[in-house]
Amino acid sequence: MPPVSPLAPKRFPALPEIAGVRLAAAAAGLRYVGRTDVLLAVLDKGTTAAGVLTRSRCPSAPVEWCRARLAAGAARGLVVNSGNANAFTGKSGREAVKLTAELAAKAIGCRPAQIMLGSTGVIGEPLEAGKFAAVMDDLVARATPDGWMDAAKAIMTTDTFPKVATATAKLGDATVAINGIAKGSGMIAMDMATMLAFVFTDAPIAAPALQGLLKDGVVDSFNAVTVDSDTSTSDTLLAFATGAARARGAPAIARAGDRRLGDFRRAFQQVLDSLAEQVARDGEGARKLIEVIVEGATSKRSARRIALSIANSPLVKTALAGEDANWGRVVMAVGKAGEPADRDRLSIWFGDIRVAHKGARDPGYAEREVSAYMQRREIKIRVGLGLGTGRDRVLTCDLTKEYVAINGDYRS
Amino acid sequence: MPPVSPLAPKRFPALPEIAGVRLAAAAAGLRYVGRTDVLLAVLDKGTTAAGVLTRSRCPSAPVEWCRARLAAGAARGLVVNSGNANAFTGKSGREAVKLTAELAAKAIGCRPAQIMLGSTGVIGEPLEAGKFAAVMDDLVARATPDGWMDAAKAIMTTDTFPKVATATAKLGDATVAINGIAKGSGMIAMDMATMLAFVFTDAPIAAPALQGLLKDGVVDSFNAVTVDSDTSTSDTLLAFATGAARARGAPAIARAGDRRLGDFRRAFQQVLDSLAEQVARDGEGARKLIEVIVEGATSKRSARRIALSIANSPLVKTALAGEDANWGRVVMAVGKAGEPADRDRLSIWFGDIRVAHKGARDPGYAEREVSAYMQRREIKIRVGLGLGTGRDRVLTCDLTKEYVAINGDYRS
Repeated sequence: MPPVSPLAPKRFPALPEIAGVRLAAAAAGLRYVGRTDVLLAVLDKGTTAAGVLTRSRCPSAPVEWCRARLAAGAARGLVVNSGNANAFTGKSGREAVKLTAELAAKAIGCRPAQIMLGSTGVIGEPLEAGKFAAVMDDLVARATPDGWMDAAKAIMTTDTFPKVATATAKLGDATVAINGIAKGSGMIAMDMATMLAFVFTDAPIAAPALQGLLKDGVVDSFNAVTVDSDTSTSDTLLAFATGAARARGAPAIARAGDRRLGDFRRAFQQVLDSLAEQVARDGEGARKLIEVIVEGATSKRSARRIALSIANSPLVKTALAGEDANWGRVVMAVGKAGEPADRDRLSIWFGDIRVAHKGARDPGYAEREVSAYMQRREIKIRVGLGLGTGRDRVLTCDLTKEYVAINGDYRS
Repeated sequence: MPPVSPLAPKRFPALPEIAGVRLAAAAAGLRYVGRTDVLLAVLDKGTTAAGVLTRSRCPSAPVEWCRARLAAGAARGLVVNSGNANAFTGKSGREAVKLTAELAAKAIGCRPAQIMLGSTGVIGEPLEAGKFAAVMDDLVARATPDGWMDAAKAIMTTDTFPKVATATAKLGDATVAINGIAKGSGMIAMDMATMLAFVFTDAPIAAPALQGLLKDGVVDSFNAVTVDSDTSTSDTLLAFATGAARARGAPAIARAGDRRLGDFRRAFQQVLDSLAEQVARDGEGARKLIEVIVEGATSKRSARRIALSIANSPLVKTALAGEDANWGRVVMAVGKAGEPADRDRLSIWFGDIRVAHKGARDPGYAEREVSAYMQRREIKIRVGLGLGTGRDRVLTCDLTKEYVAINGDYRS
């Protein structure tokens, strides 16, 4: 196991209970030895569900299952396993998701269509879903409202730390809670940063409204994170709203545009942003967290594309790993993005130090000052295009020898 | 210096003289110590010129110079330096190209507009073109028709071997020769594989015809090679035709569509293909040459995009470096390409071994057999989409810890 990322949060927040959600983890022995690999979330009746799934043309069997089942907007359970992605597994993969949902539905006492699924791990190997039979009843029996950290650990693959986030919001006169867990370390790219993430709230929010919140919220959180530009077959972000807070006076929300959602939307975004940032902090082999800001573009969309061109460039990322103030590679990445850019208006900052200005090295450039900045754990690269008002920001990490080792030395 | 790529050609061909071309190299002391860093090619009167240049929005000063001068389609000299790309150097960069062309023109006895330029190396540092003054007259005096290998060496940066190729063709009743040299090791991507390459022939081919040949020839050679998906600011491929073979009876060719060009076109493509393959063989840190073939796509264009998605995937490339038969990552890369693909029709081969068939692992899959294949120096990945007749092929290399070291440990 690689050591814990040096970018890991210094401490983890204590996640409160979410009324209507109970969790349990177990070791089903799918691939890993001596650690949990399956998570069950039991959701109370009336829980709504929404999701954003990978755009891969080769999606995993659980992604297809969720896509079909989310239309109904309701869920009673969530089963997530690590170690095997159940992707590119053909007919046996479809049988495996069906069996998993049936086993969970039987243990919980609901219909299989009310079970959402997530799988992460190796692609192409059949998932032995029968192994869930031995643990499912026990998982339901042991499910507790305070099992959040164990839940986050059960879904890890090459992750070096569990990813959790929490926030509260006022909804009407009631205080509602939002908890999120995520995994993601490699195969992280721009369309639905490749990972699994699950967000739970006790707010009474109808499925279409929850879907609207999720679709908006993903743009500047998970979709703005890239580790290696590789979009997975298994990207899954699901949100569940149990509605339990209605009993405490929270108003039932039907539409994402409801003005009463203001504070909830802020808190929801905060949870998504935190989880997404943690994914970048645990990028495989990462030693530095890189924030790329592009300003002065012709649009936000154009700024996003240029920011991703920089954040995905192997040459930029290896230079950062080497603590080399090689801003010429940032110029290269701007130039290759295919978006409007004028070399002679371009300025680049590392932190607050302007290194390039109007198409040339900054006259005040001092290598020693910039080199000192490059040794930090968190690096900010800012590009000014000088063309318009489009601005965007993405997070990534450096590309180290450890990334190559993690992905080349054994099959993850 | 990193050791010579294990993928380097076992031997280098002897390049014949090209009537009308004389070459010399020198050490101008731009950046490197103890090696040549400037190449001068002196071209006889009447030499035509054509070029394909980077599509970067932040092109280098010599790229802009060539783009403007190529319109005239003629050249009397070529000056190429390594160590400094003269890119993102603003006004001083424009002055540097002008000074370089003036110095070469004076030494050769022609106009500055008849000098083509190429620079490769660090981005953003001013190029001290004044240093060329000390060597230019000597370069012209020493220029000889047999200086090909020295020329190829003078333009190297992180290259571990010089890249040369040669072919002959019948043009009318005459035999004409084509020689090419190239450099390129990192910052190699799909639009004009990032490098400098120069091709010379004694065939009497008018500039528009030469441009047509070059534009066609680049599609399946340099544009089908990727090392790290990073398009450089300095990509430059130039072709020069001295026309000296007219004296030996070769017909003057005005149009690229001229039927008499048949054999020349074949030989010209052979030189481009060889140089492009050598660029992949010398990818920074490369230990394996990877050929990616995509068949059954809806078009050649779609096949190209899927092939590049595979060839540029860090996860595919690191798995190959680790000799891991991780075909699941090929599925991932097909899925993320955004091109038509049907998971359940997809088949994948490593060499002649079919590892996946119709959306699942091949029933006859034997890990040991595939693992043995993965240990080879040259790996072929073939993907069958089963949708149409579109087919394409790209070359790349694996992504090793050495790539990270080369690009992170010092500024190249």
